Amino acid sequence: MEKTVLVTGFDPFGGDEVNPSLEAVKRLEGVVVDGVRVTSLGIPTVFGHSRRVLTEGIEEIRPHIVIGVGQAGGRARMTPERIAINVDDARIPDNIGRQPVDEPVEVDGPAAYWSTLPVKRMVQRMREAGVPAAVSHSAGTFVCNHLFYGLMHDLSRAGSNIRGGFIHIPYLPEQTVHREAPSMSLEMIVDGLKAAIAAVAEEGEDVKEVGGALC
Amino acid sequence: MEKTVLVTGFDPFGGDEVNPSLEAVKRLEGVVVDGVRVTSLGIPTVFGHSRRVLTEGIEEIRPHIVIGVGQAGGRARMTPERIAINVDDARIPDNIGRQPVDEPVEVDGPAAYWSTLPVKRMVQRMREAGVPAAVSHSAGTFVCNHLFYGLMHDLSRAGSNIRGGFIHIPYLPEQTVHREAPSMSLEMIVDGLKAAIAAVAEEGEDVKEVGGALC
Amino acid sequence: MEKTVLVTGFDPFGGDEVNPSLEAVKRLEGVVVDGVRVTSLGIPTVFGHSRRVLTEGIEEIRPHIVIGVGQAGGRARMTPERIAINVDDARIPDNIGRQPVDEPVEVDGPAAYWSTLPVKRMVQRMREAGVPAAVSHSAGTFVCNHLFYGLMHDLSRAGSNIRGGFIHIPYLPEQTVHREAPSMSLEMIVDGLKAAIAAVAEEGEDVKEVGGALC
Amino acid sequence: MEKTVLVTGFDPFGGDEVNPSLEAVKRLEGVVVDGVRVTSLGIPTVFGHSRRVLTEGIEEIRPHIVIGVGQAGGRARMTPERIAINVDDARIPDNIGRQPVDEPVEVDGPAAYWSTLPVKRMVQRMREAGVPAAVSHSAGTFVCNHLFYGLMHDLSRAGSNIRGGFIHIPYLPEQTVHREAPSMSLEMIVDGLKAAIAAVAEEGEDVKEVGGALC
Repeated sequence: MEKTVLVTGFDPFGGDEVNPSLEAVKRLEGVVVDGVRVTSLGIPTVFGHSRRVLTEGIEEIRPHIVIGVGQAGGRARMTPERIAINVDDARIPDNIGRQPVDEPVEVDGPAAYWSTLPVKRMVQRMREAGVPAAVSHSAGTFVCNHLFYGLMHDLSRAGSNIRGGFIHIPYLPEQTVHREAPSMSLEMIVDGLKAAIAAVAEEGEDVKEVGGALC
Repeated sequence: MEKTVLVTGFDPFGGDEVNPSLEAVKRLEGVVVDGVRVTSLGIPTVFGHSRRVLTEGIEEIRPHIVIGVGQAGGRARMTPERIAINVDDARIPDNIGRQPVDEPVEVDGPAAYWSTLPVKRMVQRMREAGVPAAVSHSAGTFVCNHLFYGLMHDLSRAGSNIRGGFIHIPYLPEQTVHREAPSMSLEMIVDGLKAAIAAVAEEGEDVKEVGGALC
Repeated sequence: MEKTVLVTGFDPFGGDEVNPSLEAVKRLEGVVVDGVRVTSLGIPTVFGHSRRVLTEGIEEIRPHIVIGVGQAGGRARMTPERIAINVDDARIPDNIGRQPVDEPVEVDGPAAYWSTLPVKRMVQRMREAGVPAAVSHSAGTFVCNHLFYGLMHDLSRAGSNIRGGFIHIPYLPEQTVHREAPSMSLEMIVDGLKAAIAAVAEEGEDVKEVGGALC
Repeated sequence: MEKTVLVTGFDPFGGDEVNPSLEAVKRLEGVVVDGVRVTSLGIPTVFGHSRRVLTEGIEEIRPHIVIGVGQAGGRARMTPERIAINVDDARIPDNIGRQPVDEPVEVDGPAAYWSTLPVKRMVQRMREAGVPAAVSHSAGTFVCNHLFYGLMHDLSRAGSNIRGGFIHIPYLPEQTVHREAPSMSLEMIVDGLKAAIAAVAEEGEDVKEVGGALC
């Protein structure tokens, strides 16, 4: 049976008119990567509601793999996230004006969940495809981390064998025309996501490659 | 009874001749901050051994509070760490040449532990003292995070009521004479640590102030 | 009569295997942009010799416009340079091992020459084409500035009506796979150069748009 | 006869409540460094008027050396400027609301003037004093460069043997409490300025040390 991956992107937020994650996952809709069929889903950049939309998407699509994708303005590379943490701490309001500060994503949840995707192999495959990439150890404390933590919590509580994780991506060039920040072309982001999906589709344990951060 | 705080600093590593954390904690030895007496301890920048030295120090000194301090080259501000994660992933070898990659700090430990120090109030008090500061959501995956995770794990397993946490600090100016990176004077780092200790000494819950990271 | 622009790119240097400037100008060879025919020329990354190769190219091609292009590792945007300065001060050796320190490009030359290209309109047109761009006020003190200064000096001394200038460009993505730095796709760099050429081809004075630097 | 150096600092601008250059030069008033007596002068952050205040100060004080000092928010080191350029291009309004765009500082002036201070030796002496420092090749296009260019132009036109130059300095720590940027303590800035003055007081040519910029 063909495997299915659900990739999600967020609505634009924080004054931007586009969100590279939404643009990238739209391009992947229906694409098949190494035998894995991609379904894409747009997610509102809203605490709480984002999780409900994802949950409904998972119930409907019944994917084998879920990869959340989000914009990380200021980063120069694609960065698979290693860990999701149990805190909402919004520096700016979300798209309906909510701004939780130091609240848990799940009152009874553990401090953190690991991604169940092979983050080191994802980085390796992205680099082999010529895409700048590195493992990240913080998905922040805004809606991206909220969705990522919520996903891993729900999969864990349900004893699901769906594998899940999150990838942060840089701004698109059009977002940096008037501000000084790194960017990445949409084509390269899409190539990077395909390489990441191919890495997840491979069987076997994650590779062990140096990829840590001193701090 | 007077409270005691144990503050620890690391040996120089990675080719540097000094480590600001060790210099700073030496200056605090014996100082009393808002009724809290400071004891300082030097820790080797070595996986495993660092934890044993800390454990022995805690057993001997029996402090009420433990604050690990470490160098975060490239950061411009003092950054209390919110969370320790269960992974050793060394980008460079430690001071005896060990370089673990993707190994757990504790095989049976949870993914992460929260700092049990009031990180938001620490930042607030440091800023009030004129010291640049911000909460951090990643202590990296080198010996700093290793010690921090190990500390929180041991306190948790022992059911200890000792409060523990970690603060990353910038380079000293003398370390940036020949490289382009932010730095902070030793005097300011010491002032920042005093403000942090004062924040911990206060009674009551942590403050809720905006301090999150988009990613 | 059709106008001609000579665009030059440099050989790789400093350990890199490619130089985005050489790759980009090769793509432009023979292209016609708004009635301006592009000829491209590869230049050795060598003090002195680079100038001779450019001089010969100008004598042979007899262009109306000369645009030097060079790699500016670490920059996130395409940056037309406003000014060339009369100093060679090499932080690393050039491609034949020469490393002049604080020597003039031209012993009798003035401190600096302005670009005679409309740098503000070039930035405007690049941005309209969706390409991140900004005016730069320093072309450094390595071979890029050396060639730029030499070009403007020779044109000035000859009383030439050839217009000349220089554009620095970011790394290619493939150069940043293993280091943390911004990059730009080759396609976008080529689009940016076309937009810059179109801006030069327009008649009339440069636009006056805010584009300065506080320092 | 004792030599005199005039050091100038600017009023706060751009929303900041202090300007480290003004604070630093106040501390140097009346100090004698290696036989050189320091006089300090506050300068308004205003195009045009800043130059008049400096001219009057020079006429009154009759110094042997003039060193302008200005804030370079975002820089981590003290940076003696090598060159002043003949353009006013203000990204933000000055302190009386003027915002010249692409206007010459002096209609008949050359493109640029070199600092007549030994910038490499200044950096060397600052580093020996433990102060992070590097040569800069752009003083920007705001009031700092305006004053620097105007000073060098006036000294040149008058055939004066007064030596002149400019040093940019980082934010003070208190300016970075609520924003992410490097800073330097006032004490260290003052020490750096003293080391720079001592370097200028030495007889002989500037040293030739590697200090260039690739771009």
